[in-house]
Amino acid sequence: MDPQNNTPAMETTERVMFFDTDAGGVVHNIAYLRFIETNRSFLAEKLGWKLGEMMDLQQCPVVVRTEIDYRRPARLWDRLIVRGELEKFDHARFWCAFTIRRETDNELLINCRQMLVVVKLPGMKVMRLPPYWETDFGHLKS
Amino acid sequence: MDPQNNTPAMETTERVMFFDTDAGGVVHNIAYLRFIETNRSFLAEKLGWKLGEMMDLQQCPVVVRTEIDYRRPARLWDRLIVRGELEKFDHARFWCAFTIRRETDNELLINCRQMLVVVKLPGMKVMRLPPYWETDFGHLKS
Amino acid sequence: MDPQNNTPAMETTERVMFFDTDAGGVVHNIAYLRFIETNRSFLAEKLGWKLGEMMDLQQCPVVVRTEIDYRRPARLWDRLIVRGELEKFDHARFWCAFTIRRETDNELLINCRQMLVVVKLPGMKVMRLPPYWETDFGHLKS
Amino acid sequence: MDPQNNTPAMETTERVMFFDTDAGGVVHNIAYLRFIETNRSFLAEKLGWKLGEMMDLQQCPVVVRTEIDYRRPARLWDRLIVRGELEKFDHARFWCAFTIRRETDNELLINCRQMLVVVKLPGMKVMRLPPYWETDFGHLKS
Repeated sequence: MDPQNNTPAMETTERVMFFDTDAGGVVHNIAYLRFIETNRSFLAEKLGWKLGEMMDLQQCPVVVRTEIDYRRPARLWDRLIVRGELEKFDHARFWCAFTIRRETDNELLINCRQMLVVVKLPGMKVMRLPPYWETDFGHLKS
Repeated sequence: MDPQNNTPAMETTERVMFFDTDAGGVVHNIAYLRFIETNRSFLAEKLGWKLGEMMDLQQCPVVVRTEIDYRRPARLWDRLIVRGELEKFDHARFWCAFTIRRETDNELLINCRQMLVVVKLPGMKVMRLPPYWETDFGHLKS
Repeated sequence: MDPQNNTPAMETTERVMFFDTDAGGVVHNIAYLRFIETNRSFLAEKLGWKLGEMMDLQQCPVVVRTEIDYRRPARLWDRLIVRGELEKFDHARFWCAFTIRRETDNELLINCRQMLVVVKLPGMKVMRLPPYWETDFGHLKS
Repeated sequence: MDPQNNTPAMETTERVMFFDTDAGGVVHNIAYLRFIETNRSFLAEKLGWKLGEMMDLQQCPVVVRTEIDYRRPARLWDRLIVRGELEKFDHARFWCAFTIRRETDNELLINCRQMLVVVKLPGMKVMRLPPYWETDFGHLKS
């Protein structure tokens, strides 16, 4: 079995709007983090958290660290491909890795890694990750 | 011929993300205007302006008035249907009308109207609307 | 007594950042609504709602309609003066009026009116406005 | 002479608005990056770039990497203190370090580092940093 096939991954697409750009004529650095959150929210579904149930369950993955490299700028009306995947995890923390590429030429624009934990609301106590991750995504355990 | 068939219209969909919501537990009032801008940007293509060419052409439709009614709140992870259409136009101004509905039950959440003009950048001088609008969308001339 | 002196009003200032602008080189139309919300949040304090207590009280003013006119564009690093005041109210609804001016020449950039109601969370049931408004701001009762 | 006194630094304050929060009841992770950009924009003035002149000069500092650690959450209406300073620089790149603390108890909420370069618009060619930095901020040269 190819362990890669078990790696939870997600691809989403974005179209750059005026509200994503700034007076420098390119996409504003903060806007990419919305593109990444959208991808991560769909990826979270594959990892067992449906955003629509989170407010009832009162448990929620939260970002505790973001590292993002801005390699090349995207521009108004560009089509962007966002790819995210579970990179690794331990007892309570997991890392997701993201890239954003321009669709027309597959140019790499953005690299990003985020570390997350799952918290219990409203106290925000950190929870253990589900035991089935070790079975299903064992090749990513660190 | 049914003039309605000539009315430029666009339907787009949105999925409500955490960054669209606020501590009240519902979608923040400003976020709906991003959903509407996305719809309007695709509608603009049908009206002859491609966002990707705007920065080269140096002409751009700009919103000069927004009216928005918040009827019911959308919530995290809701699927929303945004519908926009050209409502009417005169020599230099045009009005677009938008609705946002929840996909699951078609409930009307938002009504919005925006008045726009097309400006020449960078001076932002207002331009006349293209003459072919009177031919193609004459039933919307006010 | 001059009733105008009793009109709850608030002045706030903003400095235009890159994230407020778009590729058209001016402030994006959505950004002004953040400036207005900031002003309205301080105005709400004068009207008896402290944002910091809202989540505990579970009652919250919500915008049900916005009308905004974009008269002239603001640009990067402009200093803006936002003025908001209670315009009128009835049993359950109130209207606030806002202007945004450029500080250097007092040029009027934005006119905005918002209609609000106060809701009880999480059901979002509309509440009556506090009785003391009729005593204190009676000249604004409609 | 204490070289620390020569370190360009800036302190700005923020008040948490509804649009900064999300349905989790706390400040959304993206909102902190606006607080940091505001601080960095004032810090940039001390480093010789006035945002108001950038569009004319056609040169502009751009963020090429962000690292941000989310230690504790801020909440609606919190007063936040953002501190930023020039951390180090080489020929073309410089690093700024930021903290965000809650004003009431000085609790550290956010640590952030950003690497920037200065680019010439519209081609976005990277420029050398001004020679006077070596004289004025020599203790930060790496």
